[in-house]
Order: sequence, then C-alpha cells, then structure tokens
Amino acid sequence: MNIIEPRLLKGFRDYDPAEQSARQAMFATIQSVFERFGFSPLSTPTLEYREILMGKYGEDEKLIYSFKDNGDRDVAMRYDLTVPLARYVAQNQNMLTLPFKRYQIAPVWRADNPQKGRYREFYQCDVDAVGTDSVLADAEVIACLCQAISALGVSGYYVRINNRAMFNGLSVVAIRAIDKIDKIGLSGVVEEMKNNGILDDEIERATTLIKNVNQNIPEAVSTVMDYLQQFGIDRALTSDSDKAGKVVYEPSIARGLDYYTGTVFEIMLTDKSEYGSICSGGRYDNLVDQYSKTSVPAVGGSLGIDRLFSAMTEMGLIKTQGSAKVMVFNLEQSLQNDYVEVVSTLRNAGISAELYYAPAKIDKQFKYAETKNIQYGVIMGQTEKDSGKVQLKNLATREQKEVLLTDLVGRLQ
Amino acid sequence: MNIIEPRLLKGFRDYDPAEQSARQAMFATIQSVFERFGFSPLSTPTLEYREILMGKYGEDEKLIYSFKDNGDRDVAMRYDLTVPLARYVAQNQNMLTLPFKRYQIAPVWRADNPQKGRYREFYQCDVDAVGTDSVLADAEVIACLCQAISALGVSGYYVRINNRAMFNGLSVVAIRAIDKIDKIGLSGVVEEMKNNGILDDEIERATTLIKNVNQNIPEAVSTVMDYLQQFGIDRALTSDSDKAGKVVYEPSIARGLDYYTGTVFEIMLTDKSEYGSICSGGRYDNLVDQYSKTSVPAVGGSLGIDRLFSAMTEMGLIKTQGSAKVMVFNLEQSLQNDYVEVVSTLRNAGISAELYYAPAKIDKQFKYAETKNIQYGVIMGQTEKDSGKVQLKNLATREQKEVLLTDLVGRLQ
Repeated sequence: MNIIEPRLLKGFRDYDPAEQSARQAMFATIQSVFERFGFSPLSTPTLEYREILMGKYGEDEKLIYSFKDNGDRDVAMRYDLTVPLARYVAQNQNMLTLPFKRYQIAPVWRADNPQKGRYREFYQCDVDAVGTDSVLADAEVIACLCQAISALGVSGYYVRINNRAMFNGLSVVAIRAIDKIDKIGLSGVVEEMKNNGILDDEIERATTLIKNVNQNIPEAVSTVMDYLQQFGIDRALTSDSDKAGKVVYEPSIARGLDYYTGTVFEIMLTDKSEYGSICSGGRYDNLVDQYSKTSVPAVGGSLGIDRLFSAMTEMGLIKTQGSAKVMVFNLEQSLQNDYVEVVSTLRNAGISAELYYAPAKIDKQFKYAETKNIQYGVIMGQTEKDSGKVQLKNLATREQKEVLLTDLVGRLQ
Repeated sequence: MNIIEPRLLKGFRDYDPAEQSARQAMFATIQSVFERFGFSPLSTPTLEYREILMGKYGEDEKLIYSFKDNGDRDVAMRYDLTVPLARYVAQNQNMLTLPFKRYQIAPVWRADNPQKGRYREFYQCDVDAVGTDSVLADAEVIACLCQAISALGVSGYYVRINNRAMFNGLSVVAIRAIDKIDKIGLSGVVEEMKNNGILDDEIERATTLIKNVNQNIPEAVSTVMDYLQQFGIDRALTSDSDKAGKVVYEPSIARGLDYYTGTVFEIMLTDKSEYGSICSGGRYDNLVDQYSKTSVPAVGGSLGIDRLFSAMTEMGLIKTQGSAKVMVFNLEQSLQNDYVEVVSTLRNAGISAELYYAPAKIDKQFKYAETKNIQYGVIMGQTEKDSGKVQLKNLATREQKEVLLTDLVGRLQ
C-alpha cells in the first residue's frame, strides 16, 4: 500500500491537548465576559453564497476562500463574522427586537501570507450591537472587549481610536493606503497613494489629517472617550510611556475594511507591537442596507484569539492543564471488572479518571501518568482487593497511603 | 444600489440566540463528561490536503467538499473528525505517549441531501482511544458516549453493537449494501447486491450473517457487552420492549465507512427511530497505517449533536435561556454617565447586565426586556439619583422596591 505523507496545509495548524485545553479555557472566559455585558450567542454557517461576501472587504477580498460546490453554486468560506451577521439581521429583521446584541466565537478563513501568530484559519470573538446609533454602544463594545482581554490575564494593552468620518471626502483607495501606516510609515502611505494615481491635493489633505498637527481630538471621538472613562478606561496621550489599559486618540487609524462609517478602533499590546492589533472594530451604519431596504446602524468589534494566544504563550501567560486527575492502574488480568468499577465510581462522583487499558509493567504505567500530568494513582492488586482496600499514590510526591475503597471518593474530593 | 438577497445555502442554517445558548450548554455538558473519562481536547484544521481524506469513506466520498485553493492546491473540508486524527497521530507519533485519548467537538461538512435534522454542516463530538487494542477501550468509548447522552437529559436511547470481522470475506460493496438495511430492508439489500453484480453465493452468505437465525452472540461482541455491564450498561434483546439505556446485539450493523475493522456500534433513540443513529463508531485498526509504516490500533465514536438537538427540541428537552439577568433602564439624557456606572458595578460583581442604549419611552424598554427574558429592571430618574436610590423591578411579577444603590448588588446576588 502507498503511504500518504501526513502533512498540514501552509497557514493551518493542529492544537495539541495542552494548547487546546488552554484555548478552550480562553474561549470560556471570553464567553462569560460577553454574556455579562448582555450579548447573546448567534451561530452562522461556515459557507455562504459568494455574492453575500463580495464587495465588503476592499482589496482583501482576494483572500476569500471561494469555490463552486457540487451543485455548481458559487460559495465562499466565512471571512469575518460581521458580514454574515448583517445578512442574518436583514434576513430576519421582522422577527428581531432591536437593538440586537450578539456575540459569536468562531473560526474564519483568509488566504493571507502566514506570519508570526497569523494563520489562514483563526478564531474571532465578536460582539456587535445592531440597530442602535447610540455612542454608548460604541463605548460599550470597546469596554467589553477590553474586559475580555483583562479577564484573560493580559494587562499590557491599549486602545487606539479614531472616526472614519474624518476621512470623508477621501477616496477608498486613499483610506486603504492610510490603513497601512503601521507597516509602511507615512512616506510609504504617500508613495502608495501616488502609485494609485491619487492627485497631490488629496494626498495633501490625507497627510494633514493623519498628522493632525494640532492634536485636536474630534468631538465624535471625544464623546466615546468620555463614556469609556465611565467604563473604567482612562485617556492617555500617544506620547505617554504607560498607556496600559487606556485609550489613545490616533488620527491615522483607518481600518482597512470598506464598511466602516464612524468610530474605528484597534487594541494593541504595549510590549508586543510586532503582533499588530489583536482586536479591532468600529461602527458600520450602512452594511445591513446592502441586503435590505431598511437602514440598520451597527457597531462591533472582534478579538483575534490565535494571535493573542501566540503572544500570551511568549509572555508566559498560558497555563497548560493536566488531563484526568486520577489514573486507576491496571495490574492483573483477573481484576479488569474491578478496575472498571473503581474508575466508574470515581467518574460518577464527578472526578475525572482514567483506567490504563491493559495489564502492563507498572513503570510503563507510571511513565504514562506522568506524561499526562495525572495527579493521583489508584493501585489495586489481588491482596488489596481481598481486603477492600487500594493504594492511593500522589504521583508528584510519590507518597502512598492505603485507603478503604469506600473512602476513596471522599479522599479525592 | 442593488440589494443582494439575504439567503442561506441549502442544508446550512443559522442558530438564533435561544437555540445557540442551548447548543453551547450541550457542548459544555458533553465536554465535561469526555474530560471526566480522561479524554483531552485536540483541534485539527477545517481544511486538509484532499489526498488525506480520499479513499477512506467508501461511496460517500463524493459528498466531500473539495476545491482548488488560491495556490492551486487540492484541498478538502473536514468530512469527519477521525481521518484528521489518524493523520495527526501519524504525523506526531514520535512525540505522542500512547494510548492517546482525545476528544474533539467541531463541525464537519457533507454535501448530503438535507433531511429531517440532517444538515450539510453539523457538529460531531468525538472520543477516540488511539494506540490500544484493548477491548476495555471499545467498551469505555461506548460508555462515555452513553453518559454524555444521559447527561443531556436524554434517557430514551439504546446501543446496537456488532463486529465488522463477522463480514470478513464479504466484499466492500456487499458491506455497504448491508449498511443500508434500516432504510431499504433485507430485500433492498439483496437487490442492491444483485445490481452490483455480486454472485448468489456471496449474497447467500451475507443474508445468513445478517439474519443470524440462531442469534448466537459472537465472542468478540460478547466480551464488549460484558465490560459494558461493568460500566452500567446492561444487555437487552432486540425483541425487548424496554431497551432504554441498554445494549443490543444486532447482526446487521455494518456501518458504511470503509475503515472499520472490529467492534461497530450505533446509538438509536427509542422513540425517534426516524432520526436514524444519533451516535456511532467502532474500531479501526488500519487507518493510521495509511499515513505511517507503524501500525496503530484505535477505537472511537462520534455523537451527532445537530440531529440530537432537533430530536430533543421535539421531545421538549431544550430549555432556552434568557440573556442578561438585569437591565438598567435609560430614562434621562443627563444621567448617561450614572447609568454606565450602575451597569458596570453590576457586571464587576459578576451579574450579567444590559444598559438600554438611549433614553426612550419606558414601555418600549419594558417590551425589549420582556422579549429578551430579562428578570430584573433597574430604574433610576433624577429623583432616585439625588437620594442615592434606584427602583428594582421584578419584570415577571412587576413587583417593585426602592433600594439603596449601595445595596443593589447584594439584593441581586
């Protein structure tokens, strides 16, 4: 038989049990913060009609995974969680009570060039408030995402904020160039605008806006910042050395997606700028309109968990967990039924427990338990069984005590 | 502007907040049972090289979503969680301690004909023990899945079990025909075998096996059933009227997937046979071999959560949950900052709370809170604010009490 080489696609990865346990704990933490803020979960499909997704993402549209399905339909894999939400709201607007506050934690796919902490498949954790033009909602979305990041144990982050309306009158091409300023600098932005045939006059207006030499905070931004203060997020200046947990006005923030209309923001790690933004979002008052005659204003944000996971791993903030708490050793073939009974008793009492599947050398079984970070071993041979007892071993300290089988659950709880 | 019709692809669906809350609670319950049995989580990507998936699923292979990606690679969407697991084990075998007990809860995609409770995107909840040929593992996988179903509040289910080795000597085509017996009956199976050119002699042997007129339980099946009894799952006969929670020997169970080699099983709902099996699995000792020179025996099973969710909805077993516990009413424009302070205080105390985003008629706000099943309202106008008090209203009973702002958290906890 030919052996097929086992390999992964570029930009995709497996998460082994240690990593995946930590990721799942992160998802659970984020979910509980989102729910505490009154957001409810929505699940939309991985595949959508391709036309639903096209024309929303600017030049990044080319990164969408799209193909013809078996029924010759043009389909596309979810590129973000915002556009499917807009489709959902338009499709179900007669049933929905607005404002509709939803969260969604799900993977998205982008055929981007893999970089540090950046994959072709990654999870987004989104909160959105649809059907409200209240600036309170803008502030609440940002506050909620900040709390989620804090709840993960990360304190070294700050928010950069601006308003897309500042760029009214500039072309989409100019805005997309501005969005790249962190990567290519102001001179790179100017060059990209020139290369795209933008006239000197527009370039001049764009650079003036970005530099905002007077550092006057536009009123639309200032209002959000005031509410953020009530949510516990203070203002800072770009020049401040300690911006952790604070919000900064940053006139060059544009966000690349075409659909933003008002507040735009991104969250950076204070000491890991190489990761770029780990969270971003803004107001998009005209997106639902693309699927509906009714206008529905909305605001939301998205936390990128995989990039954050990489950064947190570097920062030593990821704690890997063991698997089961207890392992029942398998020593004698004649006691298989007894071992099953012991392990079942533990599990029924809510204690996570493994049974080694077959009699094997005890050293091999110790090694297995150690590799899996199991805390306790239950050892029972014929002698123990006859006296209704087991040996309970702390696998870290190697301390061992004889306990009555009837006391085992109590001892472990 | 042209409006794009908001619509879903056939076989795909949105889960609204009420349904998705219930689904997420189901996932959490299942996850905790899997972990109690000592299984650890693994995450594999949605997309794999197409060649990894091909040749594993028999004639159902045509249901795989596959396409060429932007880099002209042949890729395919995950069809089940077992084949990627085998690929993972082969790829990482030098790092893994065997047996490797993992669970994965994730969506898979099949371009099948949508039917009752059957979608093109659906979640599977899998447990597998890789690297053991112990029959204990076969029994434990089945027991674990049964406990997960019980933990969801479903007691009306039973296990059907057989062993693929019973069909040794029969062709793959014959086995695939046998697998359809529930849908097309014995005469249908015979006809399909005939249509596929199977000779009378083989048909004769197949029908004898399926009917197993003597109802002798093969030893390989009997051993698993004995262990299952220790796990709390008793034997029953097909003819028994109450099979709930029990295991039945069923000589016609073949399971359609080509990779099974030993124990095969499926779990049915006692009163909802129209849903087919809600869970299935078996032993597949030669699957990892397709990616590796080392032979790695394995056994596992898969719980289909979407079909079960549909059935549970019909049975009235799905409890929908409310969103936030408390809503802070928004009455006066001048009190926006105070409302934010109140809602933040509640949230910081771990109480899920919403703030209505803008001053609006109180009736409208009541209606909103009611639609979202919110339990309590906090009502504060200028008068209350001046005296450091709020009105706390039970939104179901409409009972209302004036409480000190400083007592609010205590009252709600």
